[in-house]
Amino acid sequence: MKQIVESPVNRRKSLCMDQFFYPRSLAVIGVSPKKSNLARNVIRNCIEFGFRGEIFGIGKRPGRVFGVPIFESIEAMPKGVELGVVLTPAQSTPDVIKKLGKRGVRRIILETGGFSEFDMRRKVLEDEILQIMRHYGQRLIGPNCLGIINMKSGLCTPFADYRYSVSAGSVSIISQSGGMGRTLFTVMENEAIGLNKFVSVGNKLDIGEAELLKFLLSDPETSLVVLYLEDIRQGRDILRIAANSDKPKIVLKSNRGKAGASIALSHTAAMATDDKVVTAALTQAGIIRIDNTYELAKSLKAFQMPALRGPNLVVISRSGGHAVVAADACENHRFHLPPLPSGVAGKLKKHLRSNVIKLKNPLDMGDVYDLTVFPVAIEESLKQETIHGVLFILIYSEQTSGKDVHGIIPRLQELMEKYEKPVAATLISSAEGLRKIKQQSGFPVFAFPEEAVEALAISYQHYLLSRHRQLPQTPLRAGSNPEVASQIKRVKKAERNFLLHESFKIVEAYQLPVPGYKLVQKRSEAVEFVREFGLPVALKIVSRSLVHKSDRGGVKLDLDTLAKLHQAFTEMEIRIGDLNLEDQEGGLMVQKMVPPGQEVILGARRDPNFGPVVLFGLGGVLSELFKDIVIRLAPINHSQVKKMVRQVKFLPVLYGIRGGPCLDINLIEECLLKLSDLITSHEEIEEVDINPLIVYPKNGYIVDARIILAQGVRERD
Amino acid sequence: MKQIVESPVNRRKSLCMDQFFYPRSLAVIGVSPKKSNLARNVIRNCIEFGFRGEIFGIGKRPGRVFGVPIFESIEAMPKGVELGVVLTPAQSTPDVIKKLGKRGVRRIILETGGFSEFDMRRKVLEDEILQIMRHYGQRLIGPNCLGIINMKSGLCTPFADYRYSVSAGSVSIISQSGGMGRTLFTVMENEAIGLNKFVSVGNKLDIGEAELLKFLLSDPETSLVVLYLEDIRQGRDILRIAANSDKPKIVLKSNRGKAGASIALSHTAAMATDDKVVTAALTQAGIIRIDNTYELAKSLKAFQMPALRGPNLVVISRSGGHAVVAADACENHRFHLPPLPSGVAGKLKKHLRSNVIKLKNPLDMGDVYDLTVFPVAIEESLKQETIHGVLFILIYSEQTSGKDVHGIIPRLQELMEKYEKPVAATLISSAEGLRKIKQQSGFPVFAFPEEAVEALAISYQHYLLSRHRQLPQTPLRAGSNPEVASQIKRVKKAERNFLLHESFKIVEAYQLPVPGYKLVQKRSEAVEFVREFGLPVALKIVSRSLVHKSDRGGVKLDLDTLAKLHQAFTEMEIRIGDLNLEDQEGGLMVQKMVPPGQEVILGARRDPNFGPVVLFGLGGVLSELFKDIVIRLAPINHSQVKKMVRQVKFLPVLYGIRGGPCLDINLIEECLLKLSDLITSHEEIEEVDINPLIVYPKNGYIVDARIILAQGVRERD
Repeated sequence: MKQIVESPVNRRKSLCMDQFFYPRSLAVIGVSPKKSNLARNVIRNCIEFGFRGEIFGIGKRPGRVFGVPIFESIEAMPKGVELGVVLTPAQSTPDVIKKLGKRGVRRIILETGGFSEFDMRRKVLEDEILQIMRHYGQRLIGPNCLGIINMKSGLCTPFADYRYSVSAGSVSIISQSGGMGRTLFTVMENEAIGLNKFVSVGNKLDIGEAELLKFLLSDPETSLVVLYLEDIRQGRDILRIAANSDKPKIVLKSNRGKAGASIALSHTAAMATDDKVVTAALTQAGIIRIDNTYELAKSLKAFQMPALRGPNLVVISRSGGHAVVAADACENHRFHLPPLPSGVAGKLKKHLRSNVIKLKNPLDMGDVYDLTVFPVAIEESLKQETIHGVLFILIYSEQTSGKDVHGIIPRLQELMEKYEKPVAATLISSAEGLRKIKQQSGFPVFAFPEEAVEALAISYQHYLLSRHRQLPQTPLRAGSNPEVASQIKRVKKAERNFLLHESFKIVEAYQLPVPGYKLVQKRSEAVEFVREFGLPVALKIVSRSLVHKSDRGGVKLDLDTLAKLHQAFTEMEIRIGDLNLEDQEGGLMVQKMVPPGQEVILGARRDPNFGPVVLFGLGGVLSELFKDIVIRLAPINHSQVKKMVRQVKFLPVLYGIRGGPCLDINLIEECLLKLSDLITSHEEIEEVDINPLIVYPKNGYIVDARIILAQGVRERD
Repeated sequence: MKQIVESPVNRRKSLCMDQFFYPRSLAVIGVSPKKSNLARNVIRNCIEFGFRGEIFGIGKRPGRVFGVPIFESIEAMPKGVELGVVLTPAQSTPDVIKKLGKRGVRRIILETGGFSEFDMRRKVLEDEILQIMRHYGQRLIGPNCLGIINMKSGLCTPFADYRYSVSAGSVSIISQSGGMGRTLFTVMENEAIGLNKFVSVGNKLDIGEAELLKFLLSDPETSLVVLYLEDIRQGRDILRIAANSDKPKIVLKSNRGKAGASIALSHTAAMATDDKVVTAALTQAGIIRIDNTYELAKSLKAFQMPALRGPNLVVISRSGGHAVVAADACENHRFHLPPLPSGVAGKLKKHLRSNVIKLKNPLDMGDVYDLTVFPVAIEESLKQETIHGVLFILIYSEQTSGKDVHGIIPRLQELMEKYEKPVAATLISSAEGLRKIKQQSGFPVFAFPEEAVEALAISYQHYLLSRHRQLPQTPLRAGSNPEVASQIKRVKKAERNFLLHESFKIVEAYQLPVPGYKLVQKRSEAVEFVREFGLPVALKIVSRSLVHKSDRGGVKLDLDTLAKLHQAFTEMEIRIGDLNLEDQEGGLMVQKMVPPGQEVILGARRDPNFGPVVLFGLGGVLSELFKDIVIRLAPINHSQVKKMVRQVKFLPVLYGIRGGPCLDINLIEECLLKLSDLITSHEEIEEVDINPLIVYPKNGYIVDARIILAQGVRERD
């Protein structure tokens, strides 16, 4: 039996992850010498990437493949192999993993597909594997994945050909899809940005993105992590891990809509989640979310420059057209272009050969053919305290001035380092020349002025996010409200959800303002209510079977005489009979009408991946059309709620627009804090909808509320 | 004296443009043998691009430059030269153009900068040139431009080095900026899309984009025109020309905001215009507007495929991740992914080697290694009448399957032609291999699934726009309203604008509904009004000096008792005194209050570039925040106004949302038609703002109106 040699790589803190990324020995299960065999590609990849540990193959035909010994069974293989890569058919895998366990292999990459992503009935296979793993103390990446590439250790487990597609660098990738991972490599290759580690996680049966992210953020070889995800499990863990590291994290999260979710479910068994919650949560943790693959290139390049720490830019262009386009883009991203600092103008004057250049910002240096003037202008700009970065746009011919341009690139690098400010350079020339600059200098080159401006916007956004990370404190606030707890218990026991008057009681238990109301069965009770509370009133049918009351004629508003109340009562009784709505808990609700005011929506929800969140937005008939909603992870504190409320588009209405009064923003904030308390303290509550809260200058009223229990019967329509 | 030889190019209809693009002879003025001389580059470019006509140089030192004879004066040059390219200092150019005129040169490209784009005072130079041109019957492109490249005639007048940057094809470009033109070439080179003609128009002193667009759209060598513009003059001409051609037209219009406008003014003397009007107008003419340089590549590739004529796509991918990303993008662009047609599923079944592929749409063919299966799946999809196009995503290694992939490309081309449906292919592999495919086949290759989906969206948008081009009839409708005409005359004579009651009179002359109102000076008149019209009423200060009444306490609403009216009257009188608002024409307006209802905005405006437009949008306090506005060129007809009204986001509110009633959409349409009449029939009116029209189920009222005259005093604040 062969001796296992110690790998030259130093072991780190996380032995588990080290054995995955820097294994001293590797077994590939499912190898055959046939050309169509996929497992043999793993062996070839590892050899080509310079893997320095031992490699063994397991397959039906013993012999050698690419010089690596093939054993006929796992039992025949040497003991103590650290990592097993499995590519046998799905049905065989529990047995394979068990045999690997018996042979002492504790780390498994299961690349085979055809599990729960293909058919939910195959979940049993996954469960069987989990049991075996637990028994043998194994950890597993996959199934349905490509595994790991580590440019440092030479481990390269994908079963496709990965030669020539990646160079070494400091960007690491976690991808839920092997194919999308490859696309990310393509983007990086085009920008001459090198890879450090890549891991394709597939169905995430055991190890998920949280554990891997933690490893990569603490990995000294990794400077930035890109994640491609189709679902996000352990959402809070990921946020916490991300928020604790200053390394840039870029997430491309797909599976955003209904169509995407349908394929994602079968692809890597991803669960769809509310896309807006994802964005809100990632932002709170200081993670950059990109909306599509396009945006990766500029995002990566954004972090090849020092951070942009303010909104003031100087734009220096050799072409007026590019200056116009750049100015549009700057305005679009709310950058400021202050007047050209006088120092810059003074320095430049003597360099200009004719008199057709206006010394302003953006600076159109159309007539300047001496390239050394540009670094002078850039340095003078960077020197100014009030200037935070430079956008430099240079159009040139590689044939006539390529050499000169290549000459100023190191100078621009120096200037960025000296002043710790970004110089986003848009170079417009031949593709070949630009590739050379990227490869030789690692200098970020932008293709269009708009791309450079967007990269600066990402840099600035990341700078602000990093400074204002606002993750909620964990553990979640305890201390449930006893009144609420007993109500929940009672309703759950009845296997139903809260009715309107019961929802009101819950929010009242948290001192939220509800106008006078009463659930009545008899006409005389309604009249009595009016005697006590006055007119006008509203009348609403309360029934388990009628959720969207107003759509079904279950609501009568503005009853301002007793006669109208009587008539409405009669109509409602008939409707209850017609719709067969009678139930034990329900009845008719009389409710005091409140005057018109600004309608807002408040809510709380338990997201399956990120846990409790609160939301605030525009109410009224336009709410569904304009979707002006802000979401935050719960619990929120006073300073967070203030920022949250001030992020809606309709904020000027709250402050008083067109001479209107300033509305009671404090009340909105208090309500949100209480909703945050309510949802974080009562795990049974899945959703609270307050729609609307009507806000006045000095108070407000909750006119409708709906509370849904997680385990209760869902009475949605 | 040398004889001018006839150029081999056939002369076309437009002799003027032919002499610019296919001149038989060319004189370059301002040539010197010095390396820094720019004019000599024009000569070198023409030689390198294979210009077949005669070339002469004019410069201080006679001799030869690149083998071309240099004359020391224009007078010494042979007579009858067709095109003169001028690069002498700005101050000298009137004289140069005059001398060219005397020598019979009728076509001028004036490349020199330093005219009105640099300093408005230099406009006199431009005026002088115009006078000379008219005298000699000359036509001119520029100043401040690069002139023309014609890949067919070999004319290449830019003074920068253009070698290696362009290949020949059928896309033509009109660019207001030489630098941005070069950026467009870069994009085309990356996609292996060839250039036919390029023209840089600069300050557009004589020839502008309209004339050039007309020429290029009728040019049989041009299949598609790209325009980069910083301003659009002769807007209606451009729209008419564009709408009369089926060739795709793509516009990148910069100078959209304030910052852009400030540099653009100095760059090519562009005038800023309202960006929303630009978008509306271009769309009406069937022109594709792209928002930034990024979008050019996918837009050009969109037209390398047959048009997408419906929203139903089949997505076929080798990677599940790409299928998820593609499905997201499809949903985002409102494409449908119908269930996989049974024909496709049936054909595929026998090709699949294992059982881990679900036959659905998007189709994730992760396990298919036989590349010939893909064209089968694609053809089966294209065959279906209900499927309008295919999105095909293939990840592969150039080293192992490059040859096979290159092999199926001609098959995909054939399928597109056979079924006249697009196959948008996203190929993910090495840059080198993809470049080869593009160059050898002219087949559009997309880099990301999102890019392919966006290209299909552009194709579909263009298809719909081409079918529904809705340009207004010209000439504009005549027949001014005599009442309105006399009012305008009176107010213009007084060198002021319409006051509120006068604006009401104008809209009433067009039978628009205004609630009862009266301009009063005395308290008794107000009381008399109430006797006739009843309560409640509003009271408004009407004064030349107070435009935004409500912001300055000039409006009292809901006066529902006589006592309140009296009190308000007293307060207003004091305010008029305080603010010194007394004027001859003004006073106080009593107006009948109307009940609350849905507020909408109606308007008409005379755009400096596109002429009269009408607009419709959401009213009320949220209007400024959500900017839900639709704009159309006036005059509009019945069918256009119906479509226009149905494009606002808040449309469901008009139809009746949450059990609300359907509102009087007919009234809105009638009002818009009348506003269209009003603005097209009275050239003196620059702007009509109706904010709001309050709409009810069966009628509505204009509560405030403002009419601004073009020549009148602008009383805006």
